[in-house]
Amino acid sequence: MASAFLPAIEALLGTGGVLTGDDVRMRSSDPFRQVPIEADVIVRPRTTQEVAGVLRIAAEHGATVVTHGGRTGVSGGAHSVAGEIILSLERMNQIESIDPVGQIIVAQAGVTLGALQQAAEEAGLYYPVDLGARGTATVGGTISTNAGGNRTLRWGMTRDRVLGLEAVLADGTIVSSMNRLVKNNTGYDLKHLFVGAEGTLGIVTRAIFRSVAKPTSHDVALVAVPDNDAMLALFTRLQRLPSLSAFEIMYPDLYRIVTEPEVQPRPLPLGAHVYVLVESMGYHAASDRDQFEAVLVELLESGVATDAVVAQSDAQRAALWRVRESVEVAVHAIAPLVMFDVSLGVSDIDRYVGDVRAKLDEQFPGAKLIVQGHVGDNNIHLGISVGADTAAQAHAIDAIVYRGLIPYEGSMSAEHGIGTEKNAWLHVSRNGAEIALMRVIKNALDPDNRLNPRVLF
Amino acid sequence: MASAFLPAIEALLGTGGVLTGDDVRMRSSDPFRQVPIEADVIVRPRTTQEVAGVLRIAAEHGATVVTHGGRTGVSGGAHSVAGEIILSLERMNQIESIDPVGQIIVAQAGVTLGALQQAAEEAGLYYPVDLGARGTATVGGTISTNAGGNRTLRWGMTRDRVLGLEAVLADGTIVSSMNRLVKNNTGYDLKHLFVGAEGTLGIVTRAIFRSVAKPTSHDVALVAVPDNDAMLALFTRLQRLPSLSAFEIMYPDLYRIVTEPEVQPRPLPLGAHVYVLVESMGYHAASDRDQFEAVLVELLESGVATDAVVAQSDAQRAALWRVRESVEVAVHAIAPLVMFDVSLGVSDIDRYVGDVRAKLDEQFPGAKLIVQGHVGDNNIHLGISVGADTAAQAHAIDAIVYRGLIPYEGSMSAEHGIGTEKNAWLHVSRNGAEIALMRVIKNALDPDNRLNPRVLF
Repeated sequence: MASAFLPAIEALLGTGGVLTGDDVRMRSSDPFRQVPIEADVIVRPRTTQEVAGVLRIAAEHGATVVTHGGRTGVSGGAHSVAGEIILSLERMNQIESIDPVGQIIVAQAGVTLGALQQAAEEAGLYYPVDLGARGTATVGGTISTNAGGNRTLRWGMTRDRVLGLEAVLADGTIVSSMNRLVKNNTGYDLKHLFVGAEGTLGIVTRAIFRSVAKPTSHDVALVAVPDNDAMLALFTRLQRLPSLSAFEIMYPDLYRIVTEPEVQPRPLPLGAHVYVLVESMGYHAASDRDQFEAVLVELLESGVATDAVVAQSDAQRAALWRVRESVEVAVHAIAPLVMFDVSLGVSDIDRYVGDVRAKLDEQFPGAKLIVQGHVGDNNIHLGISVGADTAAQAHAIDAIVYRGLIPYEGSMSAEHGIGTEKNAWLHVSRNGAEIALMRVIKNALDPDNRLNPRVLF
Repeated sequence: MASAFLPAIEALLGTGGVLTGDDVRMRSSDPFRQVPIEADVIVRPRTTQEVAGVLRIAAEHGATVVTHGGRTGVSGGAHSVAGEIILSLERMNQIESIDPVGQIIVAQAGVTLGALQQAAEEAGLYYPVDLGARGTATVGGTISTNAGGNRTLRWGMTRDRVLGLEAVLADGTIVSSMNRLVKNNTGYDLKHLFVGAEGTLGIVTRAIFRSVAKPTSHDVALVAVPDNDAMLALFTRLQRLPSLSAFEIMYPDLYRIVTEPEVQPRPLPLGAHVYVLVESMGYHAASDRDQFEAVLVELLESGVATDAVVAQSDAQRAALWRVRESVEVAVHAIAPLVMFDVSLGVSDIDRYVGDVRAKLDEQFPGAKLIVQGHVGDNNIHLGISVGADTAAQAHAIDAIVYRGLIPYEGSMSAEHGIGTEKNAWLHVSRNGAEIALMRVIKNALDPDNRLNPRVLF
């Protein structure tokens, strides 16, 4: 289809700026390559001004625009329909500057998270937001979804790491709000409009990221706890470890699968209530290590932990993390499955998992449930399989998982966002007044619903 | 003046809900009791529903509303004009609940910061936002101004401590967004619209605050550094102390005044380039202390610090903090003066102070300049006196301070906000596109400019 806007965009972006035909069809909208791209054109601006130009052309032609970062999102935020413009930030991939004293990195939105981390590392810094998809996910994407990951507990989500940003509004207006300052109370903090808005309010083109000094100590342990009270006591105690950087739990069904002999060694025997991966990253190797081990000994002696293994080398640290990160093994083992990303109070998590288990057993006898997550951040990930017809039963499974959150005032999307796939359940976590106010904001910034038009609402 | 809306508000709020006459005139709009209240009526709702009712009545009568918390702000945010309604949150002063595991406190907006800190303390928690005005400032006020204070470096500003809130919009709509979760990515993070908006977008009535475990170690030192490079090296090194909770500098002119014999003992002799108050608050007293002292020894041996005194008791810790907090002594010593609250890159602060000093010397020979601040947060406070006619010269002094920030991309208001007094200088820190976008937001939420109508813009 020869879209009416194409000549104008080609004139603006030049050769290489526009992809059509097979160059579009060879891509997909999601990390699992399951959903083809339905739009006919991908435009690839190199500058913020070019992004603005594309949006002006889109507005003139009444076209809607879907923004692509690394397309690693799992909520369908990158899905397109025929006739729209896909705007990819992949050619805006420059790290513009690094200030080691201010611990600040200025980067374009199309830089990958891995490249940002690498640049920080080379300057003696550490950019703490980290995800499995780091090699492909773009920093613009992490801003738009407010990505979290394993170390939120210590250093916050992407929202907490962005000091300022530049975005292009639906009408092509460039709002450059490249604040570098920790304290700057001069009116509304505009960056928060765009962080976590999943591209519905503007297209983020550049940002200023706050990193931290590069840690020089790294301690990791896997801990087994006998019951939920012990898990809560463990969490309460470890929050007083100032270098605590991760508190990740695995329920036994998951732990068993990812530590079968053919997969990898099992660091601790089966039989615990939950397994917790605990990590500390600090700046004083000897005393950090002493403190870490002293706390574990205290917890073992008091019975809060029944067993623990502390990594003694880089290889062992990596091995313990691999247990936590071998989710794809479990996914494969119980496939087909549907996956969820929910949040609720730390004290409520165990009861909620029990509720879901009971409802599943009642409705789908023999259903499989795997649970792991960033408990310190309220966030757990669930995978559920009810057998070969899991996909066909997805709505019924959704209902168990999402309705189960209501009594706990939980969130139906902790860190994956709403995208185009979870809109129907937004009401579980946001009330009518909140959604109405979101629409007021959306209408104020994008009155014609031109940016990521099916996302969120 | 018998305002037309008064009977309706009296019917809504009952006896004690409305103040008029002397009950209004006996108050003032600012902490120094310099600006009388010009409005004729103060209304004091007890519930969010009553706040909504007041705003609906205001809308019906075309009245504007100025919100009062503790009136400790120093930018004129509480100033009123005749005919408007002052809405005080002073009767919404209940702490509703505390969750020690989740480290969450739910409080009404009229609770004082001191009461919130006290409630946290009693639950074994610590609410880390702290200000001199803690006994009077309300938590609602700290949200509206995004208050910072001494420990932002470690635990962030108010924005970082608020998980969720409830606000009433100009038309009386209640938006209850009482999120308790660290991770909750289900659309726009609405709380950020209200935090730091200085009451222009809605009236915050309740909020959920995130506290931390109560620290059990507390180390304080005063350090003298020989030049700016040493100050930067000190800062870079201390950022690797995970329990670092304050990094506060005092320039020598200030330090000298607040440590004159008649004021208090001088912990370190005069002659340094700047003095830095360093604090660590952690959870492992012995090892925290060892680490703190080891770092100071290392810095003294390398010449980064030329002198240091480490507090050996609670009394000594308080004495060192008193040096940092004796600003009012300096204010009195150089009065009349004008005070400023600016931010700029840590590496730029020293040059900027030099620029201001040089401009003052050129334009006002003999001018006095005192400087201190939260350098770790980019934030310094300046006090300037050019003699008896300082007030008359305020605009010329403003111009030196604010225009001087432009080459450094500094902020003309780090933590005090814009209020009604600094609007004219907003352009120093926010560009036209940013201000235009702020107005889009303001118009979307408060199209008739009914809430704090002279604040910010």
